[in-house]
Amino acid sequence: MKSFVRYSELFGKTFRQPPKDESSRNAQLLEQAGFISKLMAGVYTYLPLGLRVLNAVKDVIRREMDALGAQEFYMPALQPKEIWEKTGRWKDLSDIMYQFPDHSGRQVGLAATHEEVITHIVKQRITSYKDLPLALYQIQDKFRDEPRAKSGLIRGREFSMKDLYSFHADEKDLDSFYNRVAASYLSIFSRLGLQALMIEAAGGSFTKRFSDEFQVISDAGEDRIIYCPSCHFAQNSEIAEQKAGGPCPKCHGSLSEKKGIEVGNIFKLGTKFSDSIGATFTASDGSTHPLIMASYGIGPGRLVGTIVEVSNDAQGIIWPKSVTPFQIHLVQLSKGLEEKKKTERLVHDCLNAGLTILLDDRVASAGVKFKDADMVGITARMVISTSNENQLEVKIRNESASKKMNASQAIEFVKNYYAE
Amino acid sequence: MKSFVRYSELFGKTFRQPPKDESSRNAQLLEQAGFISKLMAGVYTYLPLGLRVLNAVKDVIRREMDALGAQEFYMPALQPKEIWEKTGRWKDLSDIMYQFPDHSGRQVGLAATHEEVITHIVKQRITSYKDLPLALYQIQDKFRDEPRAKSGLIRGREFSMKDLYSFHADEKDLDSFYNRVAASYLSIFSRLGLQALMIEAAGGSFTKRFSDEFQVISDAGEDRIIYCPSCHFAQNSEIAEQKAGGPCPKCHGSLSEKKGIEVGNIFKLGTKFSDSIGATFTASDGSTHPLIMASYGIGPGRLVGTIVEVSNDAQGIIWPKSVTPFQIHLVQLSKGLEEKKKTERLVHDCLNAGLTILLDDRVASAGVKFKDADMVGITARMVISTSNENQLEVKIRNESASKKMNASQAIEFVKNYYAE
Repeated sequence: MKSFVRYSELFGKTFRQPPKDESSRNAQLLEQAGFISKLMAGVYTYLPLGLRVLNAVKDVIRREMDALGAQEFYMPALQPKEIWEKTGRWKDLSDIMYQFPDHSGRQVGLAATHEEVITHIVKQRITSYKDLPLALYQIQDKFRDEPRAKSGLIRGREFSMKDLYSFHADEKDLDSFYNRVAASYLSIFSRLGLQALMIEAAGGSFTKRFSDEFQVISDAGEDRIIYCPSCHFAQNSEIAEQKAGGPCPKCHGSLSEKKGIEVGNIFKLGTKFSDSIGATFTASDGSTHPLIMASYGIGPGRLVGTIVEVSNDAQGIIWPKSVTPFQIHLVQLSKGLEEKKKTERLVHDCLNAGLTILLDDRVASAGVKFKDADMVGITARMVISTSNENQLEVKIRNESASKKMNASQAIEFVKNYYAE
Repeated sequence: MKSFVRYSELFGKTFRQPPKDESSRNAQLLEQAGFISKLMAGVYTYLPLGLRVLNAVKDVIRREMDALGAQEFYMPALQPKEIWEKTGRWKDLSDIMYQFPDHSGRQVGLAATHEEVITHIVKQRITSYKDLPLALYQIQDKFRDEPRAKSGLIRGREFSMKDLYSFHADEKDLDSFYNRVAASYLSIFSRLGLQALMIEAAGGSFTKRFSDEFQVISDAGEDRIIYCPSCHFAQNSEIAEQKAGGPCPKCHGSLSEKKGIEVGNIFKLGTKFSDSIGATFTASDGSTHPLIMASYGIGPGRLVGTIVEVSNDAQGIIWPKSVTPFQIHLVQLSKGLEEKKKTERLVHDCLNAGLTILLDDRVASAGVKFKDADMVGITARMVISTSNENQLEVKIRNESASKKMNASQAIEFVKNYYAE
């Protein structure tokens, strides 16, 4: 991705008005600020700015997956019916899965998740306990025919997903890896500036066990969370035995209810899929056993939407520094020759310092440029004005005061800010 | 992506036998060597090694697109029928496009190409000649219901595509950018070790003009190329007026015929799409005109398949250095303590030198390890043996002789080899 882009040339500038056909705050802000473009309900194009943020979120996730020792690979979206019939999910998921015949009349579907395919592939390539444990992940686009896709990037019909699958010889090994993934998920959300609760939830159609969900408290959420402010006990209301105002089952405090956005979920699948598909391994004593599995999901696109829901003000988006589309929004207030030279020198020095820059070089008023910078929401803003010869104005998007300093001080300040 | 991986832990090791259900050489080699896994005809999973190569190909393409000044963005696969009806292509492409109703009964399709959507988006965001020229590209997975998908990665039903679209105020500007893209494509193929011919071909269903194709001569190709060995005149046989043996229309030499794999195509679309969709701009004199367009495609997955078709021997794949999954295939021949320390030191030094390493640390014979190294096809191999205390054996995959040198010389040699 380019380190330096001129706003005058950027495809996807701000609109004066928010879109009329969006009810969610994240879609309104992201569309007006030039990050996404709606094609139909739940289906969006990522414009250049939006793609930069999406890729930054994916990179944060990828680093954590690699640190877990998981291997990245890439499965297809198009899937044959036969493989889904083995687990009974061709029928179970038919309400939300796109299923249709190809031109030869064969039934195919678009993957809403990949347990069937991964188990099928692992079956072909894993035979012995020596190959275990194994953890594989992908970042890939999935499809779900959501009846109500009105939440912008939070509930897409086509959406990016990081799905991780782990395979183990025994429950103890699964439990230990599962806990490592849970810690890794909390670290991902924290790095993205999101406060996520890990809570108990239903296990879905394919398991009677509970699963664990990660929820970000927000009025834009579609889930209801029962939680205890005293001891931090939390459950999805779909499985909670107590309602808000009820006594907490752990500390007997009073329970509250809030709305939450589900930003991740992790499932212990056990042998449900390996039994159906016949994926086994040979133990050290020569006996044969089904693989013990778990799966773990995070949606990068949904995370972009969630960040915007919880991090914005009346002026626009406020990106956390880990995923800001550029590190510096540089505002040039005059097109004079002297000014232009000063800008070029500053851009050059910023690039040398390893910083990425969006330069607003348009012929427009200071008011328009400041308004657009706030709407776009890049973490740090620098202003070069004619009025003050050697001083730059540096402002962090979510702080009210700006600071004056010279160019080298400003670069040092911003560099340190991002390194913290 | 990880810089260091142990073959003992890698998911996707070699199989002893080639797959029985593949007729194409690229799929046979890629599946046996652990790069891909077939789900159904024309639909493949990229295993960790395969994904590394695919990503390397995408990076080569991305660098060239960025150098052209094109901006990367990302469009969805799922598309509403209405937008395709404006250009008549919902019907024209119905033979190869997956088209189906969603649960509400609305017709949707999976994009086989994106001219309709890009024109729709640009219409919303471009108004003036000042916004032109504009070049946008994406690297995204497309779907085509190919009746015959027997060529491995060369003809997929689901396949990655880099598609670039350009928008201009006049034909002259379009011609100049079109020529720059053609040069950029030739540079991409050359960097991937492919000799591609740029030839005239039919323009497809949406234009009467000719288009330009890039063809790699190979018996695995599905196209027939008429060309002149004397003056390098070349045409796809589908539009050629002369057959092989006929007089070359340019130099009157004798024409030959060869099979070719189409690895790229570029089209001057003119105003076909902007007229249908109503995408216009205002000129400096205030008059309104339709945008003048071109589109340019390269398939990264097809390129992986093409490289394997033209670059292999009886032992396996020979990756060009630009896309080798790792830079060094390090073979450790003994598991002794001394040996292990030597290997650890070498891995450490290679990583410090910025090189990526696949370490074959399995308990297996030298014969098995060398056979697998040749099958996987990594550009440079290093062998640490017990027999020779301080000497390493370095071999380039497509050279017959190996060289002996000490560790620091070996690292220097490999580093220079890749820098060339």
